[in-house]
Amino acid sequence: MIGTEIERLIQLLAKLPGLGPRSARRAVLYMMKRREAVMTPLVKALAEAAEKIVTCHNCGNLDTVDPCAICADGRRDPTIICVVEEVADLWALERAGTYKGRYHVLGGVLSAIDGMGPEDLNIAGLIARAGEVGLGEVILATGATVDGQTTAHYLTERLAGCDVTVTRLAQGVPVGGELDYLDDGTLSAALKARRPA
Amino acid sequence: MIGTEIERLIQLLAKLPGLGPRSARRAVLYMMKRREAVMTPLVKALAEAAEKIVTCHNCGNLDTVDPCAICADGRRDPTIICVVEEVADLWALERAGTYKGRYHVLGGVLSAIDGMGPEDLNIAGLIARAGEVGLGEVILATGATVDGQTTAHYLTERLAGCDVTVTRLAQGVPVGGELDYLDDGTLSAALKARRPA
Repeated sequence: MIGTEIERLIQLLAKLPGLGPRSARRAVLYMMKRREAVMTPLVKALAEAAEKIVTCHNCGNLDTVDPCAICADGRRDPTIICVVEEVADLWALERAGTYKGRYHVLGGVLSAIDGMGPEDLNIAGLIARAGEVGLGEVILATGATVDGQTTAHYLTERLAGCDVTVTRLAQGVPVGGELDYLDDGTLSAALKARRPA
Repeated sequence: MIGTEIERLIQLLAKLPGLGPRSARRAVLYMMKRREAVMTPLVKALAEAAEKIVTCHNCGNLDTVDPCAICADGRRDPTIICVVEEVADLWALERAGTYKGRYHVLGGVLSAIDGMGPEDLNIAGLIARAGEVGLGEVILATGATVDGQTTAHYLTERLAGCDVTVTRLAQGVPVGGELDYLDDGTLSAALKARRPA
């Protein structure tokens, strides 16, 4: 006996990752009780984002401008490209705040199971960018998963012909990590990649 | 370096109950990748709901019509009113699907700590409805919390002058509940309210 409009809103919200029917209902009630403070601004922000968001033709980032703010930022080092799987990974690196180069979003990883081949990823764009004059380094920052590492390996081969240094993210003990709780693979990698103190 | 529109959308979503900054980011990326399938319908549903939702002047329910669909439904028993704390409780009872009377949403509970007095709740409306000719029963379905029970007790006194039967929800063993895992209070209540088999 909930109104159809409200029911439909709950159903749509429940589809979002991290939300289920129960939390969607709670969110909708929360919004409806705070119409001016929460619901109206959210409607506006969502409509604006839906209208304006575009994929950067250069790096594949999502932004309200094309080229995206990172590609258009003259203060960022144009000689380094960091290759990531998804926009979420780009955001994670931006939150870390130490990387000052450009990005390239693949839009996924190579995966036989999911049927993702090289032609499904934004690899042609990366090869084209890697061939540009002035580029010095391509950092492969795909995940430390089997698919992520396979993708990095494939990209290393594809980039072999370009005049750039290809690097990978270091693997090792995460900051704040206790050795006792680390998996064997990480410990082995950290040991193998040990460096002078 | 996330666009300000996207950042703002994430901040607004992160305010919803059950969502934090991380899940809000995930939700936004999920939506942005599925613009036609998810984002556009959500914008529409949210805008429609924000525009149309009103509080039913009769029972305090939220709906897109006033009086709400439940109050306007002639098939529902007008001789019984079920008093609940919040619209969420009304929805929960509707999901259970066995109650066929009307509702009255208080909009909270009496609480000395939160500074909620009788004048902060929709009690005047309830007393007025309880005085109407033809009403037979008022079910107090506030929560089994201290505040909920205090509110029920207060309402019982306020309704004493009206010509209606005032009832409370039964307390006892929840369906599917194992005795071993129940708290002492529930067990005592279930024992006290035992009935012929």
